[in-house]
Amino acid sequence: MNIMEVDTVDIDLDENAVIIIDQTKLPNEVVLKKLRSPKEIWEAIYKLEVRGAPAIGVAAAFGIYVIAKDLEEQYKEDEEGFFLAFHKQKEYLDSARPTAVNLSWALNRMEKVLEKEKGKTRQKQVMALQKEAIAIRDEDIRVCRSIGEYGVTLLKDGDGVLTHCNAGKLATIRYGTATSPIYVAKEKGWNIRVYCDETRPLLQGARLTAFELFESGIDTTLLCDNMSSALMKQNKVNAIFVGCDRVAANGDTANKIGTSVVAAVAKQYGIPLYIAAPTSTIDMNCKSGDDIVIEERDGKEVTDMWYEKPMAPKGVKVFNPAFDVTDHELIAGIVTEYGIARAPYTKSLKEIFQKKKQQI
Amino acid sequence: MNIMEVDTVDIDLDENAVIIIDQTKLPNEVVLKKLRSPKEIWEAIYKLEVRGAPAIGVAAAFGIYVIAKDLEEQYKEDEEGFFLAFHKQKEYLDSARPTAVNLSWALNRMEKVLEKEKGKTRQKQVMALQKEAIAIRDEDIRVCRSIGEYGVTLLKDGDGVLTHCNAGKLATIRYGTATSPIYVAKEKGWNIRVYCDETRPLLQGARLTAFELFESGIDTTLLCDNMSSALMKQNKVNAIFVGCDRVAANGDTANKIGTSVVAAVAKQYGIPLYIAAPTSTIDMNCKSGDDIVIEERDGKEVTDMWYEKPMAPKGVKVFNPAFDVTDHELIAGIVTEYGIARAPYTKSLKEIFQKKKQQI
Repeated sequence: MNIMEVDTVDIDLDENAVIIIDQTKLPNEVVLKKLRSPKEIWEAIYKLEVRGAPAIGVAAAFGIYVIAKDLEEQYKEDEEGFFLAFHKQKEYLDSARPTAVNLSWALNRMEKVLEKEKGKTRQKQVMALQKEAIAIRDEDIRVCRSIGEYGVTLLKDGDGVLTHCNAGKLATIRYGTATSPIYVAKEKGWNIRVYCDETRPLLQGARLTAFELFESGIDTTLLCDNMSSALMKQNKVNAIFVGCDRVAANGDTANKIGTSVVAAVAKQYGIPLYIAAPTSTIDMNCKSGDDIVIEERDGKEVTDMWYEKPMAPKGVKVFNPAFDVTDHELIAGIVTEYGIARAPYTKSLKEIFQKKKQQI
Repeated sequence: MNIMEVDTVDIDLDENAVIIIDQTKLPNEVVLKKLRSPKEIWEAIYKLEVRGAPAIGVAAAFGIYVIAKDLEEQYKEDEEGFFLAFHKQKEYLDSARPTAVNLSWALNRMEKVLEKEKGKTRQKQVMALQKEAIAIRDEDIRVCRSIGEYGVTLLKDGDGVLTHCNAGKLATIRYGTATSPIYVAKEKGWNIRVYCDETRPLLQGARLTAFELFESGIDTTLLCDNMSSALMKQNKVNAIFVGCDRVAANGDTANKIGTSVVAAVAKQYGIPLYIAAPTSTIDMNCKSGDDIVIEERDGKEVTDMWYEKPMAPKGVKVFNPAFDVTDHELIAGIVTEYGIARAPYTKSLKEIFQKKKQQI
């Protein structure tokens, strides 16, 4: 099966199940998994079978809908019991990944819809939940598509693009964020060469990004994170597109560890680095990158994960931050679903949000 | 056993054997291996049980001596046969790693010594070989020590040092090149924190450098190659020391892939990067980095090595250069056994060689 023909997260309304591409099986097998019970949905998120902030949000929205649908009959005559049961299941799903913002964001949005339908029949309430979950999914598709259409204006046929980590289709529903301009370029019939940093220690670039691009028939080359300078020196890269976890009001961008390394190398060779950022990831209350706390993770991800025997001396200290912050001065543009922000970002990001407000 | 108490390559004159620390067993086991037959010596070099240009050179010198010693009795009355057998074995050892410059350099030096002893007894000839092999070993120790003593002047107590790949004791006999200033600082009682890039894809930083430093009781932290920017941002790094494979006359330096990435990041944070370079690696006939051909290696090192299953889609292209070239503008100093060269290197490296000439 070609993963580009299915959405990363989908819903089967007839069977009342969430359908996901099981990402823990990639790149060796493409397995579609149907999630029906609360436990199955919780585990899929917990075990990273579905990952990437937007995809997690949609999985949670579809998940809580599927659960509510199953409860509909049981609570036909008991709204209070239904609301209580819904809330309990919502909290349960929310516990699958405590720091994933999109997870609680989507679940809260679903609960608000339910509250608005107070006094109506269970059937109507569940239908409202279905509609909202589908809206969340459709919004993600629209946002990614729009980023792709703005982003592609920064490319031309024949370009080479470097990307880091997975801000791809597999982190969203379709298109991805950083990869969306590449997929849109492909639709135009352009030949874009894409270079994927493998992205240590979790190797999302090798396992996921290289996989989805290669499967889509895009000219894909994998490299280790420390090879970007050698690549750029050979004039193979015209632009860099990466995703983001959080953009501050001044344009400083937190993204997967190594992004600011790529940015420093790109500066050296005069290659533009673009951030693909849905406005949902831009935090105007966060003044600069200094306000972003960087999560440090277990050193075993570096020394032990993937290996039969540890690859480092027992007991050695490990520095394993999950993200780093790229200074806004190293960023050539921030591509949102409402257009491309350019320096000075303090001004241009405000304009993006004004445009958003006008369009809603 | 603490690896710092033994040399990386040594000779047992009584048993007529080369002794090596088997580096393929690190970091999980410290195994000393005795090499007696030509095949054992060849395989140790071929299988990277001994690696690092200087260590390979010494292993080859000791190796060809051990072989010659074994032939001494057989060819007691037959100089021509002895010279022929010696040459054959020399060519055999030289075939273990065709591109390792130090391998043929050491073997040619040994053969020249033998030729000078023409007409003397086998015993005298073999003794001359023993003397020369020991001289090659002792020179390596002196050169590394001297680099350490010059290099330590660039550090102060409490500093943090980042290093890439293994230009350590395990690549030489003692001290290493890039690590030598750290070991000399330790002798002074200084507390130097050392950060080791794991160095994908072969992980020499994790398996070897972190291992030897940690075993020596040095404050050692391992990180992935894409974490150097996050580390420098935290002001943890005062200087970067790396080794080199080849330095051009203008200071451009070829070293393990990723060195020029570290250099670009260091520039971003204003941290000095120093190259530890024995004069034997400085090639004054090579004008600039543009003249250095970069070896590309099998992509399987990136996708398959170390793993049970491949970590990338089957058939994807892989960019896997073994080295990159760091522009001389990113280098704060080149530390040789005759002193520290500073920009402009075209002038300062010439002065280093003048100093060398005067001292020989």
